[in-house]
Amino acid sequence: MAKLRMGMVGGGPGAFIGPVHRMAAELDGDMILTAGAFSSDATRSFQAGERYRIEPSRAYADLDTMLAQEARRADGIDFLSVVTPNHLHLPAARAAIAAGIPVMSDKPATATLDEALELRRLVRASGLPYALTYTYSGYPLVREARARIAAGAIGKVRKIVVEYPQGWLAGDASGKQAEWRVDPARSGLGGCIGDIGVHAFHLAEFVSGLSVTELLADLAAVVPGRELDDDCTVLLRFDNGARGVLMASQISVGERNGLHIRIYGESGGFDWRQESPNALIQHHADGRTEIIQAGDAALGPDAAAATRTPGGHPEGYIEAFANLYADFARLLRGEPAPLLPGIDDGVRSMAFIATAVDASARQASWVPLLIPGE
Amino acid sequence: MAKLRMGMVGGGPGAFIGPVHRMAAELDGDMILTAGAFSSDATRSFQAGERYRIEPSRAYADLDTMLAQEARRADGIDFLSVVTPNHLHLPAARAAIAAGIPVMSDKPATATLDEALELRRLVRASGLPYALTYTYSGYPLVREARARIAAGAIGKVRKIVVEYPQGWLAGDASGKQAEWRVDPARSGLGGCIGDIGVHAFHLAEFVSGLSVTELLADLAAVVPGRELDDDCTVLLRFDNGARGVLMASQISVGERNGLHIRIYGESGGFDWRQESPNALIQHHADGRTEIIQAGDAALGPDAAAATRTPGGHPEGYIEAFANLYADFARLLRGEPAPLLPGIDDGVRSMAFIATAVDASARQASWVPLLIPGE
Amino acid sequence: MAKLRMGMVGGGPGAFIGPVHRMAAELDGDMILTAGAFSSDATRSFQAGERYRIEPSRAYADLDTMLAQEARRADGIDFLSVVTPNHLHLPAARAAIAAGIPVMSDKPATATLDEALELRRLVRASGLPYALTYTYSGYPLVREARARIAAGAIGKVRKIVVEYPQGWLAGDASGKQAEWRVDPARSGLGGCIGDIGVHAFHLAEFVSGLSVTELLADLAAVVPGRELDDDCTVLLRFDNGARGVLMASQISVGERNGLHIRIYGESGGFDWRQESPNALIQHHADGRTEIIQAGDAALGPDAAAATRTPGGHPEGYIEAFANLYADFARLLRGEPAPLLPGIDDGVRSMAFIATAVDASARQASWVPLLIPGE
Amino acid sequence: MAKLRMGMVGGGPGAFIGPVHRMAAELDGDMILTAGAFSSDATRSFQAGERYRIEPSRAYADLDTMLAQEARRADGIDFLSVVTPNHLHLPAARAAIAAGIPVMSDKPATATLDEALELRRLVRASGLPYALTYTYSGYPLVREARARIAAGAIGKVRKIVVEYPQGWLAGDASGKQAEWRVDPARSGLGGCIGDIGVHAFHLAEFVSGLSVTELLADLAAVVPGRELDDDCTVLLRFDNGARGVLMASQISVGERNGLHIRIYGESGGFDWRQESPNALIQHHADGRTEIIQAGDAALGPDAAAATRTPGGHPEGYIEAFANLYADFARLLRGEPAPLLPGIDDGVRSMAFIATAVDASARQASWVPLLIPGE
Repeated sequence: MAKLRMGMVGGGPGAFIGPVHRMAAELDGDMILTAGAFSSDATRSFQAGERYRIEPSRAYADLDTMLAQEARRADGIDFLSVVTPNHLHLPAARAAIAAGIPVMSDKPATATLDEALELRRLVRASGLPYALTYTYSGYPLVREARARIAAGAIGKVRKIVVEYPQGWLAGDASGKQAEWRVDPARSGLGGCIGDIGVHAFHLAEFVSGLSVTELLADLAAVVPGRELDDDCTVLLRFDNGARGVLMASQISVGERNGLHIRIYGESGGFDWRQESPNALIQHHADGRTEIIQAGDAALGPDAAAATRTPGGHPEGYIEAFANLYADFARLLRGEPAPLLPGIDDGVRSMAFIATAVDASARQASWVPLLIPGE
Repeated sequence: MAKLRMGMVGGGPGAFIGPVHRMAAELDGDMILTAGAFSSDATRSFQAGERYRIEPSRAYADLDTMLAQEARRADGIDFLSVVTPNHLHLPAARAAIAAGIPVMSDKPATATLDEALELRRLVRASGLPYALTYTYSGYPLVREARARIAAGAIGKVRKIVVEYPQGWLAGDASGKQAEWRVDPARSGLGGCIGDIGVHAFHLAEFVSGLSVTELLADLAAVVPGRELDDDCTVLLRFDNGARGVLMASQISVGERNGLHIRIYGESGGFDWRQESPNALIQHHADGRTEIIQAGDAALGPDAAAATRTPGGHPEGYIEAFANLYADFARLLRGEPAPLLPGIDDGVRSMAFIATAVDASARQASWVPLLIPGE
Repeated sequence: MAKLRMGMVGGGPGAFIGPVHRMAAELDGDMILTAGAFSSDATRSFQAGERYRIEPSRAYADLDTMLAQEARRADGIDFLSVVTPNHLHLPAARAAIAAGIPVMSDKPATATLDEALELRRLVRASGLPYALTYTYSGYPLVREARARIAAGAIGKVRKIVVEYPQGWLAGDASGKQAEWRVDPARSGLGGCIGDIGVHAFHLAEFVSGLSVTELLADLAAVVPGRELDDDCTVLLRFDNGARGVLMASQISVGERNGLHIRIYGESGGFDWRQESPNALIQHHADGRTEIIQAGDAALGPDAAAATRTPGGHPEGYIEAFANLYADFARLLRGEPAPLLPGIDDGVRSMAFIATAVDASARQASWVPLLIPGE
Repeated sequence: MAKLRMGMVGGGPGAFIGPVHRMAAELDGDMILTAGAFSSDATRSFQAGERYRIEPSRAYADLDTMLAQEARRADGIDFLSVVTPNHLHLPAARAAIAAGIPVMSDKPATATLDEALELRRLVRASGLPYALTYTYSGYPLVREARARIAAGAIGKVRKIVVEYPQGWLAGDASGKQAEWRVDPARSGLGGCIGDIGVHAFHLAEFVSGLSVTELLADLAAVVPGRELDDDCTVLLRFDNGARGVLMASQISVGERNGLHIRIYGESGGFDWRQESPNALIQHHADGRTEIIQAGDAALGPDAAAATRTPGGHPEGYIEAFANLYADFARLLRGEPAPLLPGIDDGVRSMAFIATAVDASARQASWVPLLIPGE
């Protein structure tokens, strides 16, 4: 019953998401960061290992070395967390799978749709656990909304508005976090749509239980000189006929991380905001408006299982992230984790990005969202 | 220095907007409802006259009679407020103008673009004051945002998101208020887009000081059996290159009257919600977020002139409406009222509706918004 | 069925509350300002009459003249609105009652408890309608909370927290509105407690249906050199044993008009804020939190009767004020208006002020709130 | 550079705060739960050890055994976290100190003031690190408010309103969390005042930088049959003359964990709510209202050091708690941690509880808050 041992690729000095993966993985006392190839620069990788307080011998110069060395240990890593820039997601996952190591990958799954399809083949062939951190699906009240919608709380879904405004790239894109995101070589085909639009896309499908079948995309690089989109609007059609609007922006000055979803059905609606994640508004058919709060006794099992503190003790981003790792731990132990995003979500997301970028470039009207192999 | 005498056409028993016009007109003690042809049914018109407590002899069976009778009095009406269903806006305005009577019309100006063009000719030829109650432009903090943007507070405008969700037509459309709105014969070409989308359109142009030049429209009749659109998304391009998203819906269960506008510029942004109209969020370039409140000492002259109470004493919809009437009173007295919507706004709005309805029906991609005669 | 004719004493140039009374009285088209003695300076009274656009002959040099002249007219005033500084409330009401004219008085009823007792004798002896504008009891959702509590929605009331923070007297008290409020000669015994604390006191009793029986008061003049209290805390006991905390302050920098009441019972609670008056939070025994909004179909008759617009069209301070005048019009027409504050509320309030000021000065612990003659 | 090893006393099956201490301690990767005496029932202690996934041999039957066994190991625990019910805080801390082990204690320090004084002697004599988890002082924006006030942002503090409403004990107090809190034998002298009022007390002093010198207390057991207070109001005087109101309640139905503090100075004010902890309102002297958000570039070093994610990625209760452990790690490594509550805060808090309980029982007016030995 020891803790599951986590290896990490990426997450070196200056990284944002690597430390978040570690905090999330360790939050429930069920996993522990044990080894890492934290940087493509060996010295920086060792420095990171010290900062993470792992055994010095288990901070490695590169991923291949880590996989080889850990494979020789009885207490080798149980899984690999991939927290590199996007263009390295596939190579890292490929190497881990080849070594028989399950993968928890930061999103998006890969840099291109073709890569995602390759990864899907690898994952399916290996039978290994593979998951993607679409973080926002880990929030308890997101899961509550999903469960209530699935149970018919608002009738047939008719309309989804999902938006994700940020403002941090409204000016120059300098700094470690910004630079790779505006660089097509490291970020992949999409800018804003790939960085955050894809979170909104996943959330809309996750909460509603529906699938996007068609879209109309309008992407732009608003800041002069920028190569990748930094502001996107995508109109959506879902498989039950519902209509959707997806907005993502990184030039909305003053917005932090304003992911917000509203779902309207025939007989009710839900409204949830990531920046105040412990409240969920439910509109009822009889006109009542209810504020559902994390920790409420009326919450269903999915939300309850994703909550660590009583009502009024706010949980946030790290805890949502940790809920994905808790699901992943279940997978690793052979238990089901039906809410955890996996490679099929990764492929859908990459298809969404590719289709939107292409359609917008052509100024096309509605186009189908086709998922190769489905 | 007597009060200005208001005549009204429409506003009979069961009406919502007629009484609002009366309250708004009289709020500042500068106008008084004096005569009316309140219903196409003479008996009901007389009943309404009693309820409005006007002199019985000045409740008329029809508009023509009113105009004729009032013209004979030394204390006849000074202007006509048109509060009928949309298809009667033009005939009423035409009759008033023919009688030399200024017109304050509920929006939209007319039922069709052709009618609006005719009305524009009539207004221009007459030289008479004519105004349209795009109510939301009367809110003090809307005017404050407009003034600050004009003064460069957020730099060049890049992005506008304006939305207007309602839920009251998500089910059956019964009741006096609902029935005419879903009937093409009385409502005109557009349903939701004409009823509320047009408010959002006007607000976006009003606050930003920009003009829409192109649009991409996606309108739908979501409720089975409905003939007119009840849910609309329109993508916008403005004359300075800014991008916009306009959403209007009457099937968003649980939403009341959620008009909401966000405007982002190169160096700041504004956020205003009609349902909490006495606060305006300003995002500053240096990262500060400010809550500007009605009554604040720092407000400019437009907002200050549109405010009747000290900070913290909430004003609302009726007061915003009254600000349009206060502007109209200025017009009638020969003073300027540059913020008051007029026939040109009416024509733009009708062109917007016509273009959006047509483009959506054809599933067109981007189309220009052409204003005949401009 | 003509409009009721309103006379006004006070409300001259620079006044805040006089114009509010006029707007409120006229909002529903049922009353009209017809005459006034607007200032103790005759010239200023005539100027005010022009601005109010009343007949010049009906702007009077003083109240006695107005009462005498109006009494001679067939269309003389039907009631008097008293909007002077506090120390003139009693003389004005006394004169009106002597002339057989009903009185609508701004709060507080009088400057001292003895005066209030005298006024109670006069009102009772005359049998004339007399009412007091405890404005906040006019808000629809305040009336809804009252009705629901009376119907048992939260069980026995256990705890009330009512607060009224303002910040506008945190510095120098200059300007027409501020100066008389900090002057004992014009304001009466209490400063903050009389100006706004008394609103909180009335609201707590009004919403809960309970009566304060004991209090413990801690009043202070925080700003150096101030003679009257500008910050007050009063602990309360109600007649059913419930506990209360009342806070009022005029030195809370940044607060506008933050009247806020929370009432907790054995099985639920209510939460209402004056600055966002169109929402009422109800806490249910089963843990649900509901947002009740003005215009909701589920509202009871008191709230519905006090609402002029559909949900989502915000009403505010002037509309709440107008609801008191609508009640007063009912009184004048011989109909019941059970929610309208009257002279007994005025006496209770003055006893509250007098008791709190005295107890605080003595640094007493709990003292009874005794109402002479009850 | 290994992780600091944490021992825990308390925190067995069903505990709330024990797991929170573990999550908080481990969040930054700097500490790890290594040993524990989790329950007074040895079997339950071993079960807890399994659930925490520590080495089976390091789950002990009782604290004395743990301290003795760990002392023999080269890798023995570096500190002890005390998370038992209140009456065991002193014995546990005493044992740890006797064994030369630093202590991180849940609040309150002890069950009585006398115990706290004894503990102060022990801590001082030992020179060992000792800290108390007044959690709410760990929130970044609480520390920001403190820093800004210390730097003069609002001038001299005049008024503090701190409240802490909860509703969970409004009915029967059943369940592991509730039972000991309403039992004087396990909870100590105070009920609500000791459980949550003391948090409010600490927060008020912490943020303002002031010390309470006098108080007037009104405590009650509202629920029939309850022995300890469940609703408290305490009026405060601070050492600079500022006035305060402290409210704590556990019978406020519908409230979760509504800790809320407002501080008003001569030239500004702050407003912070625990349930939306990532926003801080600042009122400026010139009337501007600013929303300061966690992650803002303008935040000072204390807040920045206490923040793990960029703006818009909400952090909450566990992260605030972790900030105290991060401070404690600094202490253990010999670095300063000036914001971390220690034994002197513990003594002040116990004096506050004892004084308030006594004064309320006597229905006293103002009494001094005396700290023995200061």
